[in-house]
Amino acid sequence: MNEFQLIQQIQRETWVAGHGVKLGIGDDAAVIEIPAGQQLVAATDTLNAGIHFPADTSAFDIGHKCLAVNLSDLAAMGANPQWALLSLSMPQADPDWLHSFTAGFKSLAERFGVALVGGDTTRGPLSIGVTALGLIEPDTQLMRSGAQPGDLLVVSGTVGGVARVLDLLRDASSEIDRTLLDRPQPRVHLGQALVGHASACIDISDGLLADLGHLLTASGCAASVEIGQLPTPACLQDLADEQKWNYQLAGGDDYELLFTLPPRHAARIEYWRDELDIRLTVIGSIVDGEGIRCIAANGAEFHPQKTGWDHFGDKS
Amino acid sequence: MNEFQLIQQIQRETWVAGHGVKLGIGDDAAVIEIPAGQQLVAATDTLNAGIHFPADTSAFDIGHKCLAVNLSDLAAMGANPQWALLSLSMPQADPDWLHSFTAGFKSLAERFGVALVGGDTTRGPLSIGVTALGLIEPDTQLMRSGAQPGDLLVVSGTVGGVARVLDLLRDASSEIDRTLLDRPQPRVHLGQALVGHASACIDISDGLLADLGHLLTASGCAASVEIGQLPTPACLQDLADEQKWNYQLAGGDDYELLFTLPPRHAARIEYWRDELDIRLTVIGSIVDGEGIRCIAANGAEFHPQKTGWDHFGDKS
Repeated sequence: MNEFQLIQQIQRETWVAGHGVKLGIGDDAAVIEIPAGQQLVAATDTLNAGIHFPADTSAFDIGHKCLAVNLSDLAAMGANPQWALLSLSMPQADPDWLHSFTAGFKSLAERFGVALVGGDTTRGPLSIGVTALGLIEPDTQLMRSGAQPGDLLVVSGTVGGVARVLDLLRDASSEIDRTLLDRPQPRVHLGQALVGHASACIDISDGLLADLGHLLTASGCAASVEIGQLPTPACLQDLADEQKWNYQLAGGDDYELLFTLPPRHAARIEYWRDELDIRLTVIGSIVDGEGIRCIAANGAEFHPQKTGWDHFGDKS
Repeated sequence: MNEFQLIQQIQRETWVAGHGVKLGIGDDAAVIEIPAGQQLVAATDTLNAGIHFPADTSAFDIGHKCLAVNLSDLAAMGANPQWALLSLSMPQADPDWLHSFTAGFKSLAERFGVALVGGDTTRGPLSIGVTALGLIEPDTQLMRSGAQPGDLLVVSGTVGGVARVLDLLRDASSEIDRTLLDRPQPRVHLGQALVGHASACIDISDGLLADLGHLLTASGCAASVEIGQLPTPACLQDLADEQKWNYQLAGGDDYELLFTLPPRHAARIEYWRDELDIRLTVIGSIVDGEGIRCIAANGAEFHPQKTGWDHFGDKS
């Protein structure tokens, strides 16, 4: 199997009908028609084996996850995903591995109508880079910078579960449900629904406090987090409060959306829960000042062990 | 130095004024305004240490090359490069290395007005993925598929030099000029000039014969190559003909443009040479049939040892 057969296999197995694709896989670059009156939203994220996913992750799940984390970035902008490029480095050309990988990629791509329009394949340590391209109405993108004191702080899904799954895998004797780790669900429809309502938004990849910190820095304000309200995944239910909170506040890789909502839109939360069938939890509020205060149900302030994931050390 | 300081350093050190950047580095994704009446051209290519560049390549040259190979893909479409995303995996966060890397990246980006609008940094074996985005007038892109019998076959620059430099590095005692290897020059202005004239175009990354093969497969025709005409870099001058031809026909990584030109546009070649100050050589012609015939000056057919570079073996 040579590189061109590989590319043909990827092309065949990932095919999804896309909008505006004037020229897809098979030339030096892709050509895309952007609809008039829309702006392009672009994100890129690379997953390295052993760092962003355990080395024993199935090819299907790697295919899912490499697209999911990028769609999550588009979701955090409120964008409508449309196209993707894939840069695949593999130690060897294995058509069976690739077949499972493309199946995982395609099942997610199909769900959101994302057409793979180009990329490259090369030999190297297993590493998957995806660039996701989407569309948005001009000047409607959700940013990190719009939060205001008084806004509600809301998070989708649950937090901290992936970090716990990783810890359980490290010293596990029994079967562990890896779904949270292997199949993050990009909150694409939620992101789009938030446009025009949320004042700021970010996806939680580095951990709740770390990403909330980015949002607050960009917005120039502070937050109060009611840690008793943090949505808890099943895999954290057996833990004592402090241990649980540490996972929820600092665990990364959840790929949930964290957003701020002016109180006048508060009624939307219930509507979105029903309409999008998604868990949404108000976990605190934006306040004046700097930093993040984590408040327990008894009113005491909680100081987490660490605040989040940084690929280059310096946990702070 | 943490990940966010890294990103800030990259942002600061690569800044180039870009068109249409509504939101650049620093949020979950970039937002770009595409001018009305233009189409988007997108390419992505990843360079892995030890595979796409020798492990001892300077950070500056890596920064240059990771952008150059992507701009070369846009050039092969005739596109006007505008924006880039960078996905950088590094074994550790080294601000000095990064400073040289961004200097190499920026010097090329600035030359063509390419704004870095996003990306990610992560820990991992040294690997650099770039997505390059450009613009083109609707339906004017150069493709691999338009060559017709009778068209002239033209190549820019010289061919085979990079393969020779790599071989020399392997068993070198003396100083070797690595410029061809480390500083490929994307033929952006040539690509744009070819729009409306060339019938097909490809960039030579896999080797002349391999990439010509792709062009011929896409176009459904054959080619005759006059190997005595192949443009020879200085580092091949000392070789016997057969050895030289093997480098020129099969050596990859040249990042020159190979294009076909209907004979009615033949006079353009001289014009482009002067206007763009670029070496352009007619190396043969497109003919009916299948395959590639390599013809020496004495009329004899030459059969090269191999035809080009394939990342997954199967040299054919």
